[in-house]
Formats: sequence, C-alpha cells, structure tokens
Amino acid sequence: LGPCSCTAPGNRSVLMIVADDGGFEMQVYGNPVCRTPHLDHLAKRSTVFTRAFTAVSSCSPSRSAILTGLPTHQNGMYGLHQGYHHFNSFDGVRSLPGILAEHDVRTGIVGKKHVGPEAVYPFDFAHTEETESIMQVGRNITHIRLLVRQFLEANDSRPFFLYVGFHDPHRCGHTQPQFGQFCEKFGNGDPGMGYIPDWRPAVYDPAEVEVPFFVQDTPAARADLAAQYTTLSRLDQGVGLILQELASAGHAQDTLVVYTSDNGIPFPAGRTNLYDPGMAEPLLVSSPLHPASWGNTTAALASLLDLTPTVLDWMNITYPKYSILKKDEPAILTGKSLLRYLSPGSHGNGGESQRDPPGAADDEGRRANSVRQDVRQTRYEPTVTAEELSDAVFASHDLHEVTMYYPMRAIRTHTFKLIHNLNYKMPFPIDQDFYLAPVFQDILNRTQEGAPLPWYKTLQAYYYRDEWELYDLLVDPHEQFNVARKGRYQGVFRLLQEKLWAWQNATYDPWVCGPGAVLQDSGAYAHNHQCLPLYNGL
Amino acid sequence: LGPCSCTAPGNRSVLMIVADDGGFEMQVYGNPVCRTPHLDHLAKRSTVFTRAFTAVSSCSPSRSAILTGLPTHQNGMYGLHQGYHHFNSFDGVRSLPGILAEHDVRTGIVGKKHVGPEAVYPFDFAHTEETESIMQVGRNITHIRLLVRQFLEANDSRPFFLYVGFHDPHRCGHTQPQFGQFCEKFGNGDPGMGYIPDWRPAVYDPAEVEVPFFVQDTPAARADLAAQYTTLSRLDQGVGLILQELASAGHAQDTLVVYTSDNGIPFPAGRTNLYDPGMAEPLLVSSPLHPASWGNTTAALASLLDLTPTVLDWMNITYPKYSILKKDEPAILTGKSLLRYLSPGSHGNGGESQRDPPGAADDEGRRANSVRQDVRQTRYEPTVTAEELSDAVFASHDLHEVTMYYPMRAIRTHTFKLIHNLNYKMPFPIDQDFYLAPVFQDILNRTQEGAPLPWYKTLQAYYYRDEWELYDLLVDPHEQFNVARKGRYQGVFRLLQEKLWAWQNATYDPWVCGPGAVLQDSGAYAHNHQCLPLYNGL
Ligand SMILES: [Ca+2]
Ligand SMILES: [Ca+2]
Ligand SMILES: [Mg+2]
Ligand SMILES: [Mg+2]
Repeated sequence: LGPCSCTAPGNRSVLMIVADDGGFEMQVYGNPVCRTPHLDHLAKRSTVFTRAFTAVSSCSPSRSAILTGLPTHQNGMYGLHQGYHHFNSFDGVRSLPGILAEHDVRTGIVGKKHVGPEAVYPFDFAHTEETESIMQVGRNITHIRLLVRQFLEANDSRPFFLYVGFHDPHRCGHTQPQFGQFCEKFGNGDPGMGYIPDWRPAVYDPAEVEVPFFVQDTPAARADLAAQYTTLSRLDQGVGLILQELASAGHAQDTLVVYTSDNGIPFPAGRTNLYDPGMAEPLLVSSPLHPASWGNTTAALASLLDLTPTVLDWMNITYPKYSILKKDEPAILTGKSLLRYLSPGSHGNGGESQRDPPGAADDEGRRANSVRQDVRQTRYEPTVTAEELSDAVFASHDLHEVTMYYPMRAIRTHTFKLIHNLNYKMPFPIDQDFYLAPVFQDILNRTQEGAPLPWYKTLQAYYYRDEWELYDLLVDPHEQFNVARKGRYQGVFRLLQEKLWAWQNATYDPWVCGPGAVLQDSGAYAHNHQCLPLYNGL
Repeated sequence: LGPCSCTAPGNRSVLMIVADDGGFEMQVYGNPVCRTPHLDHLAKRSTVFTRAFTAVSSCSPSRSAILTGLPTHQNGMYGLHQGYHHFNSFDGVRSLPGILAEHDVRTGIVGKKHVGPEAVYPFDFAHTEETESIMQVGRNITHIRLLVRQFLEANDSRPFFLYVGFHDPHRCGHTQPQFGQFCEKFGNGDPGMGYIPDWRPAVYDPAEVEVPFFVQDTPAARADLAAQYTTLSRLDQGVGLILQELASAGHAQDTLVVYTSDNGIPFPAGRTNLYDPGMAEPLLVSSPLHPASWGNTTAALASLLDLTPTVLDWMNITYPKYSILKKDEPAILTGKSLLRYLSPGSHGNGGESQRDPPGAADDEGRRANSVRQDVRQTRYEPTVTAEELSDAVFASHDLHEVTMYYPMRAIRTHTFKLIHNLNYKMPFPIDQDFYLAPVFQDILNRTQEGAPLPWYKTLQAYYYRDEWELYDLLVDPHEQFNVARKGRYQGVFRLLQEKLWAWQNATYDPWVCGPGAVLQDSGAYAHNHQCLPLYNGL
C-alpha cells in the first residue's frame, strides 16, 4: 500500500457522492465539451470505471440498492418513494447507515434521500428533502458545502460515512419550470433566480454539445443537452467544494471518495430503461491508500450493488447475518467489493486497469473487428465464457411512478445484454418528468407530424418491446438488433437466461415466474419453490 | 324513530363484522342449501341490501376502503399489505379508528386487520394477525367470542366501535393445505385438526351445492363449494356467538351491527375481478333504533365506501377537514350514509325497501322483459337516466399481489356496468391462492386437455379482456356480452365514462389518464391537471 497504510480500518471514512440522473458528460469519460474540472481532477486520484452499471435506472430504487446492496425487488423499494408512489423498503432490511452505526461509524446525509422508511435508513446527521427544500440541499452548492463542513467539523473522532446526494443534474421542467429545463438558471443571479455565491455558471452553445447516439440530433435536443451541461457544471463545482471541505477538515488521507449517479440521464433510452444509456453510470473510486491506482481506468464490470460491499470492505466490517422476509434464510449480498480493482496488478476481465484513456480495450477492439467481419461472412459462432458469465452484472426494474408498471430483468456481460420485459404487451411507460422534456416532446411532435426524426429508433419501437431482448454488444453496442430469436444465439441466450434466473432466485425476486407462470413459495411449496404455468399464451 | 330513540348519538356503538371472501351463500340471499341460521336471524333484524358492492375486490385494499371511506387509489393501499406486497396507506390518511378515538369512542379490532401503517389504523384494543395466529383470531370462533367478551366487558362507559374480521371463509389450500381447501377441517376435532369447542361443523354433499352461474358445474368445483359452505358455517356460528356476547353485555339496544365481506368469493370472476361476482357483497345493516326496517330488503345501490359515512352518521360525527397529499385540497368522502334507507318510507332508486324476498323488483323485472323483447326486435334504445347515474357506485382495482398489476376502474348503475381495464393487453393475473384452488386447476386442466368445460367463459376470454367492457345488465346480468362497441350504446357509454371520470378526479386517481396519456398535475399544471397524449396506440 501507499503512504497512508498507517490508516487502520477503524479510522477509515467514506464520502459517497451521488449525482441525480448524471451521465458521462465529463472529459474523463470522453466528452470534450462539458467542462467538469473538479470531477476530472477527482478522476486523476481515482480508479475510473468505464463499465459500471446501476442495478435499476430509477431514483429511489437505485438509491435503495446503493445503500443496501440489495436490488429493488429484494429490498422492497419497487418504485419512487415520494407522494402517491409511496414505495418503501421492507422494515427488516439493513442498510449502510444502520449497519455502520452499529460499528461506531458516524453517518450523515446531505441532499436527496428519497428512500424510506426512516428506521431502515437512519442517518445521524440529515439535511434532506424531508426537512428542507430539495433545491437548497440538493442544488445550492454553497449551502451544501456548509452542511458538509458542519458535519465534518463535529467534535467526534469516530470514522464517518457521509452521503451527499446532489439533486443536479436532474430535470426541473416538470416541477419548477421557472428555473429552466434542468434548473440551470437556479441561483445564477438573474432576476428571480436567486444567487448561489460559489457557483460560476458555464453556458454552452447548443451547436457545440455532443449528441449521444441515443438522442436525436435536433435543435430541441441540443438545447436540452446544453441546459443539462450548465447544471452539470454546478454539480461539478459542488464536488470541488466538498472535496475542499474534506481536505480542510484533514480527512483527505483517510477517506474513500466515491462518485457515481443513481440512474441514466433523462433522455430517451436513459432513465427508466435498462439499455446501456439507462444502466451505465460514471463511477470514480478514489482511495488515499492506493495511490498506484490513481488515474487508472478499468473496463472491469462493476455494479452499484458493489458499493455496499465496497464500503464494508473499506471499513473492515462484515455484513450482518439476518433474514428479511423468509425466516432462516439470510440475506446475501450479490455484489462484491471493488477495492480489488485498486490494488497494483489487479485487473478485471475484459480490460486491464490501465493509464490509457477509457474506451474498448485493445484486445476487445480487435475481437470486435473480427466478429463484425465474421458476422458479415455468417461464420460467426457467438459464445459467452464461464469467466465472462461469472463477472456479469444484473439489473431489475419494477415501476418508477406507481402507474408505470414495467418489470424488467437484465444481465450484462462484457459482450452481451439480455433483457426480460415482463409487461411487454403494453407500451413502455413514460414518466411525468420525461414526458414534458423538450427532447421527448420533440420526438412526439415529429412523429405525429411525420417530420424528419434523426433518431436511432422509432417511437413505436421504443414503446413496444419484445419480451426478450438479446444484444451482441461486440457488433451492436447501441443495442439496436435484437438477436434473441436468431438460431445461432440460442446457446448464449440459454446461458444468460440461466444465470439471470439464478440471480433472481438468490435475491428472492417475486417476479421470477412472470409473465407466464405463478410463483408458489408457501404451504406445500415452502421448501420447494416452483413456477406453475398459467397457459396464458405468454 | 322506534323504541330506542332514547339512545342519544353519544351513546351509540357499532359492531362491524367483515367476512373474508364471503359471498351470498346464505338463505337470506336465496341460497337454500348453505345453512346460516345466525346470519339469517341477523337479517331479520336488518335491512338487507341486495345490491351492495365493494369498492375493490381485494383484501387489504377493500379493508382500507371500508375503514377510510376512500378508494384504494386515494388512500394508497394499492394492493395487499403483507409480505413482499407491502402496500400501505399514506401516512396522512384518516381512518375510522383514528377519527372515532378523537371523539371519545373506544375502538377494538379482533381478527384480520391486513392494513397499515399502524398510525393510520390505530385501534385501542387489537388482537390481530400482527400479534397472534390468524387461525386463532380469525377462525377459532371460541377464541374470537372470548376476545369480543373481553373487549365488551372492559370497565369503560364510552361508546365503542368494534371491528371483527373473520378469516373465514377464506381459502387455505395455498398456505395451510393440511386443513383442507377452505380450512374447513380446522378445529373440527379430527386428529391433528384441533378442536373449536363452540363449532358444530356442517357437512355438505357436493351433489347438493348451488353452483353459481360463474362457476363451472364439475365435480372439482362442487367439492370446492361444499368445503366453502362448511367454513361458512363456522363463520355463521361465530357471528351468532358474538351477537350473543353483544346482548349479554347489554349492548343489543344501542349498537348498530353491520355484516359484510371484503371482496368476492375466490372463484372465477370473483375475487380480484370487478364483474358482479367479484364486486357484489352481502350487506346487512341492523339498527336497534329502526325496528320498522327489520327484515326489509332494498335493491338500492350501496357501496362499502358508504360504511365510513354510515358509522359517522350513526355516531353523529363530522368527517374531519384535512388534506392527504395535495395541500389545501381537503379529502372528501364520495360515499353516503346508508341510514337513510332504514327510515320508514325510505327507498332507493330501482327498488323500494320491501318485506319481499330479494330479487329484481317487479318494476325492473317488467322492464327487463320488455327490453329483452325490444333487443330481439332491434327497437331498443338503451338509456341511463340522470337519477340512475347519480346513484351509481364505483370501484377501482390496482394490484392484488405486487406482481399482479391490472388496474381497473368501474361504474355500476342499476342497469349498466362499465369497466375500464388499463393493462388490458396483458392477461388478467391470477393470484397464488386462487391458482392452486381446485376450481381453477380444473379450468386449467380441462382447457389444456381439451376436455369439456361447462363454464360460462373460456380461459382465453378470461385472461384477455377488452380495454372497455360495457354490460347491459337488464338483458345481460351475467356480463357476458360486451356492448362497448355497439353503436346504439354509445350514448350510455359516454355518460358512464364521464361519470366515472368525474369520480376518478374527485378521488385524485393517479391512474386517471391511463393507458394512453400522462397525468400532469404539478409545476405548470398544478392548478390545471391535464392528461397529455402519448400517441402509444392506446
Ligand atoms: Ca435520479
Ligand atoms: Ca378477502
Ligand atoms: Mg413495512
Ligand atoms: Mg408513508
């Protein structure tokens, strides 16, 4: 280890920073336009994960998965927590703040909480939307810095776990349109916008933004992206401020800093989807104890379900033995600590840790090229190795808003993605926030008017999905060609299904038998769970 | 008023008895086989409602609607409360036990509660599945009688509200198959069955049961019905015991007794459906202050949403002014007190209170005959009057088990039923309990094997429903012929849709815009709710 091996596990703290709907709009992730100097600086002291994935692309469900290490279908947070959506984790679930408190770790949350009930997520220090304006605790970076300072200055020598939930760069057009589509005007000093002293807004020319492949290249979408960039600059500066506070408080050398986002960006195929634009997240893991890892990039597959094990590993705490709903069946974390990728010489399958900029590892690039050639020549035999399968990450989505029932289960390996859509005969649901987004209104309007829509999909295809979607990411990284019914993919399909099924069973998925069967797991089936067929044509 | 007008509102108590999945298997409702002497005796001191309907045909949702007067979509109990279903009413909801306690009424619950959170349903005296075995508090009628006695013998002179939630005649094959399909053997004294001292089991010959129109006439279904009858006899004797306790405690003269059931019987088209077999409930309202109403039968439309207003009316308590989720918008009860049907000379539209046995009122019978004739001659012009519309009852269903998303909205008048199925492209879901029921296994097996199935539907039609189902009950009381697309019904269809829509808005239905539009009700739409179109083909 590096210069700080003096920091014993009992003195190690954690600062976890979670963006709200944040994506890859940073230079470290290859976006040359959006200026994020503070995140890029953090990246230089981090291992940069280029293949990290959320376990669910929805706010409360993802936050519950981050804080418990349990997927949404296992912890009970099946959808949004607020208002009439009203989802809550089961009373018996154990989360990081609760577990850590038992090990004499001080816990704090500043910003967006969005999970419940309180007893499951009991932070010692809490300034969240439950007690203050989410705009203040989630977007006012001056206020956020001062709350972080207050937490760090407490006269308490115990190690800490501080979770900062920025509300940036979440959209705003749905609830507070007066501040712009992304609240990009909030606090900019213009009349009526308020003033955030620490923020120097960056403004972007819509003509200059990077339009990702899953967004149509139109003026409306570009304006939306430009507003998003401005808001991301506020988040970026906020991250800079709290890292400054961490250093000033003398904790730069004993604190693991994690930066990620709860779910995909609020653009088509992003948030609420399990396509990569919804599922892939930025992930920076900065350890003062692993200076050799600073600036490294890894293409190892990581899941946000790995964060709870990572924090416990960092603090040398064992996950407690307890059961949630099934007596005598202990809850088990299916994620794994990410610290293993920070040690010198470590590497994940499919991409060694390296100091090169992110992107497909060379090996994989060569393999992809040859596969593309083989596919054209129909000589290609798709395969997935046991090693690749054992590294897979998983995701599950049930609802977002309570009216948006669209359960999905997904497994992603380095080269394949399999999605199971359970309610697939109904159209994919659209949330209130995204519906009003200019980028989606633009898709709706152009589709209705028959105007040109330079997008990678049609609205019809976006709404109506196959029950099973299988993508060969080596040749189809944009997940456009479903090969689930192609003969030569049946072997891969079956292996991925089996692996997904095993994960669903290990995590007590109530949806494990849907949509064509009924789960029986009590009475005569208590020790012999079965999926019994409905003969409903599915 | 009668001899007991001496009982001032401040001294009036309530005993509410709720069966679990109970139906019309009693002589008073025209079933000559199932012996229910105690319920029939209660009926002789009651107004018997022949057209009472639950607001949702699912256990926790219905109980929440009974106890709050608010439909499931307004109180938050969107599905089952227990286990991984985990639905709960909103924290801000006010229910009978909470409201009554503020008016110095003592509250008690014995038996099945199945709603939460505790703070919303705070009974003073509680012996439920939360603290004891549901078999004991819900099916052991000796134990139930003693708990009722304990409650009534308390040294407390305040009026009371006692809610007795029998677990009978709920099925049992799913969770405790050792006691039979309906727990009909539980406590019968056979080896391993335990012994309930007060119960004299009645046994029925499957050949003799009455097979309702919505159940196939097969040996499996008949055996299922015979078991149900036996369990209903336990419930019936339990009702007799607690009425005895009420009288012994000296409260026969000051206590309103209500008997009903939470949802339809667990047979096809029953529980979880909004067809009449799922939605219609027995309802006996027995007032010691209205002896002139004893033995009367009324065909007036009643809703279980009327029970909260009825109890408040009986106790002369005003529903509190408060709001649930929308500040400054007070919750309003859409039900009305049923006491108006108990006064001499009262009558509901479509059927005067009368001493005749139940059944179609004469007027209506004549009208139905002439309508049937007109339909054959295609001279028939269906109409629904403003008076009939103003008497309509409503129902809403969201989920039952958390995996069973099938939102429905329904309006029922004396002569029409309109059902809106929001997730209609997917098959109607089957719950774990009903799936294992012999009556359903029989449908599955016969369908799979191509064996004769003497049923009023096919399994395929049961699974796949139209988005809108409109039934002309005068000519089609079994709801077999959907006339929603028939030209001459368009006027009626539109009027019913408007009325249903108005109720959904009055009750803040989150699903009000589904499945083809998105509800916008915040930000720019906070004071101007709108359904904005998705153009998703629905
Ligand atoms: Ca989010
Ligand atoms: Ca029930
Ligand atoms: Mg709970
Ligand atoms: Mg709540």
